[in-house]
Amino acid sequence: MLYVTRREVFSASHRLYNEQLTADENVLLYDKCSNPYGHGHNFILEVVVCGEVDKKTGYVIDLKILKKIVKEKIIEKVDHRSLNHEVDFLTGINPTAENICIAIWNQLKDAIPSGKLHSVKLFETENNYVEYKGE
Amino acid sequence: MLYVTRREVFSASHRLYNEQLTADENVLLYDKCSNPYGHGHNFILEVVVCGEVDKKTGYVIDLKILKKIVKEKIIEKVDHRSLNHEVDFLTGINPTAENICIAIWNQLKDAIPSGKLHSVKLFETENNYVEYKGE
Amino acid sequence: MLYVTRREVFSASHRLYNEQLTADENVLLYDKCSNPYGHGHNFILEVVVCGEVDKKTGYVIDLKILKKIVKEKIIEKVDHRSLNHEVDFLTGINPTAENICIAIWNQLKDAIPSGKLHSVKLFETENNYVEYKGE
Amino acid sequence: MLYVTRREVFSASHRLYNEQLTADENVLLYDKCSNPYGHGHNFILEVVVCGEVDKKTGYVIDLKILKKIVKEKIIEKVDHRSLNHEVDFLTGINPTAENICIAIWNQLKDAIPSGKLHSVKLFETENNYVEYKGE
Amino acid sequence: MLYVTRREVFSASHRLYNEQLTADENVLLYDKCSNPYGHGHNFILEVVVCGEVDKKTGYVIDLKILKKIVKEKIIEKVDHRSLNHEVDFLTGINPTAENICIAIWNQLKDAIPSGKLHSVKLFETENNYVEYKGE
Amino acid sequence: MLYVTRREVFSASHRLYNEQLTADENVLLYDKCSNPYGHGHNFILEVVVCGEVDKKTGYVIDLKILKKIVKEKIIEKVDHRSLNHEVDFLTGINPTAENICIAIWNQLKDAIPSGKLHSVKLFETENNYVEYKGE
Repeated sequence: MLYVTRREVFSASHRLYNEQLTADENVLLYDKCSNPYGHGHNFILEVVVCGEVDKKTGYVIDLKILKKIVKEKIIEKVDHRSLNHEVDFLTGINPTAENICIAIWNQLKDAIPSGKLHSVKLFETENNYVEYKGE
Repeated sequence: MLYVTRREVFSASHRLYNEQLTADENVLLYDKCSNPYGHGHNFILEVVVCGEVDKKTGYVIDLKILKKIVKEKIIEKVDHRSLNHEVDFLTGINPTAENICIAIWNQLKDAIPSGKLHSVKLFETENNYVEYKGE
Repeated sequence: MLYVTRREVFSASHRLYNEQLTADENVLLYDKCSNPYGHGHNFILEVVVCGEVDKKTGYVIDLKILKKIVKEKIIEKVDHRSLNHEVDFLTGINPTAENICIAIWNQLKDAIPSGKLHSVKLFETENNYVEYKGE
Repeated sequence: MLYVTRREVFSASHRLYNEQLTADENVLLYDKCSNPYGHGHNFILEVVVCGEVDKKTGYVIDLKILKKIVKEKIIEKVDHRSLNHEVDFLTGINPTAENICIAIWNQLKDAIPSGKLHSVKLFETENNYVEYKGE
Repeated sequence: MLYVTRREVFSASHRLYNEQLTADENVLLYDKCSNPYGHGHNFILEVVVCGEVDKKTGYVIDLKILKKIVKEKIIEKVDHRSLNHEVDFLTGINPTAENICIAIWNQLKDAIPSGKLHSVKLFETENNYVEYKGE
Repeated sequence: MLYVTRREVFSASHRLYNEQLTADENVLLYDKCSNPYGHGHNFILEVVVCGEVDKKTGYVIDLKILKKIVKEKIIEKVDHRSLNHEVDFLTGINPTAENICIAIWNQLKDAIPSGKLHSVKLFETENNYVEYKGE
């Protein structure tokens, strides 16, 4: 069993806002993260696939293929976008790092052609990041 | 003559858009960077002050003071903000990295109490950055 | 179940020295790390909390709160300090990276208001680091 | 139980090529990675040992000793070398990151004098890396 | 006058060897860097263009264009290649970091459509790098 | 003219203290940096040598030689040491980053066998660093 990681970076804006709460409750909860014009990050995404090494290829999964899947399913949809308004797989989701990370997992979990998705890690900044393993 | 650098990080959103051009011209020029909802970055700012070392303190400028100035004049105004709509010293400025960098220089150049401002460097991503030396 | 990480940096000095051993045995064991005047590092601390995502907030734990706890319980006590002489929660402990890491775990394990402490990672340098999961 | 990591860097060249396949099949499979003259990386290796902390030393394993083992068993054999032609423990192995990682595990697994080998992580680039835990 | 930087990474192999010297002299001079099978690096390239900011675009040079030029003129020719055998603009050149850096400058100096080439920096490793400014 | 950089890291402790001032004045000036037990950093040192490229070697200076000089003249003297008490070339010097940087310059300026010393950069942390060019 090997763990293979592909790292990608995307630049996006977001605003934390729970539609079920009042504006004041949102400010109380999210402070400057709920600023109406949004803010942004260079998000770093790490996608880990695990599986056995194929004898013929010496790969768990060809990283060219993993890169292509992550680009198509995630990066092309989120890069230089607003995570609140423009991303199909985030519609109706309050884009905290946690919620984005789970949504990315759901986008990818059935799209891995060899090995299986093991974890998704998402860095908002060098100091703050989250990880999800589908459990 | 010594060069002293303070590095800070801020997370902001921006949209490249020249009000003098049509919407189509903006898309042609800025592509996804002119997306109406904006995108964002963890901008890294490096402020360099140069001067002689003070015999008493062993400092060109106390980095605690330089940090305080950069925080007050820049970081508190831009962090978790939209650079198009919410920053007084960027009003009316199309927020390309180049224009933000020059505006930060102008904010800081008369605010350094010992030594003088030597350069301002601004990273949008790990791959793209600009530097201005006031010339 | 999500894993949420907060990263902090602190600059401290330490000296490896086991009071139960002779001076010569300490030198034999710790070499330059037992130098009487001590040496220092920019220690990097990563604190990981795991738990379920709260439906209302979209958080496992608000990172502003986790940051405040880590600052109060750890960083304010160790930053710009000697880990041998000035830190209450390290009294009587030989400050190897391993021992510091366990002591930080013990400081934090009952202080997390939502989710629970999952792991503590401590980097002495970019090449040497330790991790503890409370097991 | 603590996890102790030593990180090392080595610069090597390699070429992905499965001798059981034709030249064309290799190109189809490995593309530019099968280029006959090879290419290279600054590989980053992270070796993790886990075990209990020794009361006397405050260590799981003395990092000076772990560093020496990793240097002798791995780094001196691979640094500034071709991974296809010059490394005894890679003879007959198609040097994909996965296969190199497993071979490094096998080199180290019986060489750790205190604690036991927990995992080996190998970065080819900042965007691509693999990890093996002996399972 | 602003300085705009584009950073790229490429993975290549090379061998230091001066054809004018004997094999023994090459070993004496270059040691393991003259190993016949070559070794490799993830080279990091930073290309700096300087010029005035265009009022219309807010750019010295559109970084999309600079990126395209660097990709076409340099990265596509050197990535996953042997710098001794496969790169047209390095033919007959002993590929020390210094010589590669000057050759990259020469490839780029007349290819910059706005602003002018200011410097080329080339990192072989995180510890060793060179810079050339055309002087 | 090429610029060649060697980067080294050393872990040391220091305390900012001007012997000409009272204890209270030192606290007022240096705050926690004047803490009697000292604190420490993983200092990063970058030494830049400039000169013409030698036709025979393709080097300004062999980086193996530059590395050896920096190790012998600087790193072996400061690594795992107190910069206040144990370093011959810092005797009587209040070890601010500025003063250490100038002292390192003075140690190296006549020790470079080919090319000449161009600059010395010293990072205390990722956010604070100084540079000296001998002017």
